[in-house]
Amino acid sequence: MKIKVFTLILCVVFSFGFTQTDEKALKDIYKTSLTNGKSYDWLEHLSNAIGGRLSGSKNAELAVQYTKAELEKLGLDKVWLQPVMVPKWERGEKEMAYIESSGSITKVNICALGGSIATGEDGIKAQVIEVKDFKELEGLGKAKVKGKIVFYNRPMQADLISTFDAYGGCVNQRYAGAMEASKYGATGVIVRSMNLRDDDYPHTGSMSYGDLLVSQRIPSAAISTNDANLLSDALKQDTNLQFYFKQSCKQFEDVQSYNVIGEITGSEFPDEYIIVGGHLDSWDLGDGAHDDGAGVVQSMDVLRLLKESGIIPKRSLRVVLFMNEENGLRGATEYARVAKEKNENHIFALESDAGGFTPRGFSFATNDTNFNQILGWKALFKPYLIHYFEKGGSGADVGPLKSETNVLAGLRPDSQRYFDHHHAANDTFEHVNKRELELGAATMTSLVYLFDKYGVNPVPNSNKIKD
Amino acid sequence: MKIKVFTLILCVVFSFGFTQTDEKALKDIYKTSLTNGKSYDWLEHLSNAIGGRLSGSKNAELAVQYTKAELEKLGLDKVWLQPVMVPKWERGEKEMAYIESSGSITKVNICALGGSIATGEDGIKAQVIEVKDFKELEGLGKAKVKGKIVFYNRPMQADLISTFDAYGGCVNQRYAGAMEASKYGATGVIVRSMNLRDDDYPHTGSMSYGDLLVSQRIPSAAISTNDANLLSDALKQDTNLQFYFKQSCKQFEDVQSYNVIGEITGSEFPDEYIIVGGHLDSWDLGDGAHDDGAGVVQSMDVLRLLKESGIIPKRSLRVVLFMNEENGLRGATEYARVAKEKNENHIFALESDAGGFTPRGFSFATNDTNFNQILGWKALFKPYLIHYFEKGGSGADVGPLKSETNVLAGLRPDSQRYFDHHHAANDTFEHVNKRELELGAATMTSLVYLFDKYGVNPVPNSNKIKD
Repeated sequence: MKIKVFTLILCVVFSFGFTQTDEKALKDIYKTSLTNGKSYDWLEHLSNAIGGRLSGSKNAELAVQYTKAELEKLGLDKVWLQPVMVPKWERGEKEMAYIESSGSITKVNICALGGSIATGEDGIKAQVIEVKDFKELEGLGKAKVKGKIVFYNRPMQADLISTFDAYGGCVNQRYAGAMEASKYGATGVIVRSMNLRDDDYPHTGSMSYGDLLVSQRIPSAAISTNDANLLSDALKQDTNLQFYFKQSCKQFEDVQSYNVIGEITGSEFPDEYIIVGGHLDSWDLGDGAHDDGAGVVQSMDVLRLLKESGIIPKRSLRVVLFMNEENGLRGATEYARVAKEKNENHIFALESDAGGFTPRGFSFATNDTNFNQILGWKALFKPYLIHYFEKGGSGADVGPLKSETNVLAGLRPDSQRYFDHHHAANDTFEHVNKRELELGAATMTSLVYLFDKYGVNPVPNSNKIKD
Repeated sequence: MKIKVFTLILCVVFSFGFTQTDEKALKDIYKTSLTNGKSYDWLEHLSNAIGGRLSGSKNAELAVQYTKAELEKLGLDKVWLQPVMVPKWERGEKEMAYIESSGSITKVNICALGGSIATGEDGIKAQVIEVKDFKELEGLGKAKVKGKIVFYNRPMQADLISTFDAYGGCVNQRYAGAMEASKYGATGVIVRSMNLRDDDYPHTGSMSYGDLLVSQRIPSAAISTNDANLLSDALKQDTNLQFYFKQSCKQFEDVQSYNVIGEITGSEFPDEYIIVGGHLDSWDLGDGAHDDGAGVVQSMDVLRLLKESGIIPKRSLRVVLFMNEENGLRGATEYARVAKEKNENHIFALESDAGGFTPRGFSFATNDTNFNQILGWKALFKPYLIHYFEKGGSGADVGPLKSETNVLAGLRPDSQRYFDHHHAANDTFEHVNKRELELGAATMTSLVYLFDKYGVNPVPNSNKIKD
């Protein structure tokens, strides 16, 4: 047996930055969440009694009122609405699309992308040019693209372990596909849904026309993965096939909406703020249970679980339910603007916006000193199978709060099933597992407990990470 | 800020027992499984075309034939059936049960436990005595139990992070409930389903009468968690309520069945055997997709993925699809008996029998020397978010192969959703996620690859674990 073994002797300084009291606190938090959590009940209401909560919609307004009322029941020190103007876009009638080839018609499943213009009453019918990316589109140029529908069909990369990485490698087709195709005179855009599974659900999501003139804007829609495969196969048989689609979506004037905020004022350091949040708005096709009803109810339960566990926060803890993450980020922008105006010191901001699945850990955006402190807490989480503590991004809503000295973080649940549901009609309550949701809430609460107790180092990078 | 910090300086010897070739091999294995895996297709057939595969049933026989034929297509060195006699128990007609109180009837969802006797044509109607455990039953004694139906209603403990631990804390009610209740003259047994979720599915599973005389045997059934709660509440209102249930299940003579085995004979050490397996039989209510269709197809794909990745095993690799794990363990017992008879040196045996969910790692039953070697491989798995390498149990089917020097292991997927489906009518194909299943297959294949390459230490405990 020839084994090539690298033997390395390391002297490691482990700083266990926690006590037995902390071990007990986490145990209580997890137990309370799993036996007496509220997150699942709240999610049931948000998903089933209210439903999809697109910014500016009646449902978004109902969600604001409902979550405010629920936070008021918790006996927090303050609950309030923070006004913010949000965009309002409506899907209108259900979209319709088909492939026409050799005189036969095959219906396919599409949905308008958020922010797209309509096709007009008659819809659009044109030949299709399939591309994998913008470079291929550029190579084809106006000669081959003008008057056609551009079909972006680059699939998510299945061999990436994080499905978010796979999403990141594709989403420019959806966001900027129309903007790019318009340059070459395309008449419309069809984008393969951001979904790793082959199924019949089209997945919406935001798109932008950038600084295109109104006259240059073209309609764009997502097509289900099954139908993207179908269309691609059909094009191999008949490059001249015609594709028809019709959508009647519309952009309205901005409307008044709100972030919903609840606070427990700190007993020792009331001027240091810790926030935990998710976004209250969702896309309109499903009921937004995973994206981001889960993050909303978990964040609400963080403050409640701390109270239930008898923990009196030293710092000011806020739950912030952001409005308009999906198509504008207006709520997050406004929250950060007001925080800056009031000179509020946000030492830690945690977002849950990656679905209500079994939590695996967190991604931290912070300096090395803080990250080193955080690594000292990792062992505390081992009994709960929380193992992922990595530097990286945090969340779209907490992002604007970044400073040199603070910590931003995002909960990282298991990502494998997320894009089966993301922005689609099957992002619904029955696809959220109660225990998985509650474990996420407990994991977030535990981290908030630690930041509340120990704070963060006010001096950036005073101490390099030991490894 | 007062932080109580324990600082500990440790000198640790890390032995990285792998090479860059191994890193590359794992990358290939995961990529192949996620982009060109066969496990999901096989599972679709086992679940939807065949269905539930209770030992001795026609479906179990079909599953034997199907998996043998599929293994034969893989170009292994040998594929064969290993004969084994298995018990045959049939559920018969769908069970029926109701609560009768104050003249009103409320139907409830029950299912006979595997191995139970029938109630007879007329069913059983009796008063109910609810207990949490055998001690409480003993305390009540014959005076309070005789002639009644014993209702075991101890729920799974929700605050345990591993749902298998919660199952372990309850399953004696199901397995031995009738045996115990019979001692006090009970007329039948109703057991709360082993399910952490409140829903309407009764969960079956094996039960035993031990050495009770035939005349002392009483029928036992599981009741759904919702209806267990309903019954318990009803008993608080009316301790004299009547419970009726009828089941027509029957035990037959043992019948001929088989383990299905495929082998790639080792190129260097053909007399050292590595096996990977799951159990081909399942309960009859669902289609056994998670328990244990997933383990079967993952195990089949282990050998295929190694072949696809161009790896030529040094040791003899076998996939073993065990028959009759659920109600007898006859296949596992026979496989181990034959292995012993032939003096086959099984150095490593891996089982997947905990559902087709996202893999988290493995539990290893082995000596310290081997475990230390295994820990040296752990870092290889980090990119795949595999973090759980612990000593513990392995799997029911590989258990009989235990020796002083070998390694037994069980794949440990995320356990949160497992008991929502376990042994119930909703253990079906649509509840298995393709990527989660494929990640499990890749994780198993990676570990088999490492054991094949490096073997195990033939001397037990020659080297203590360093920590």
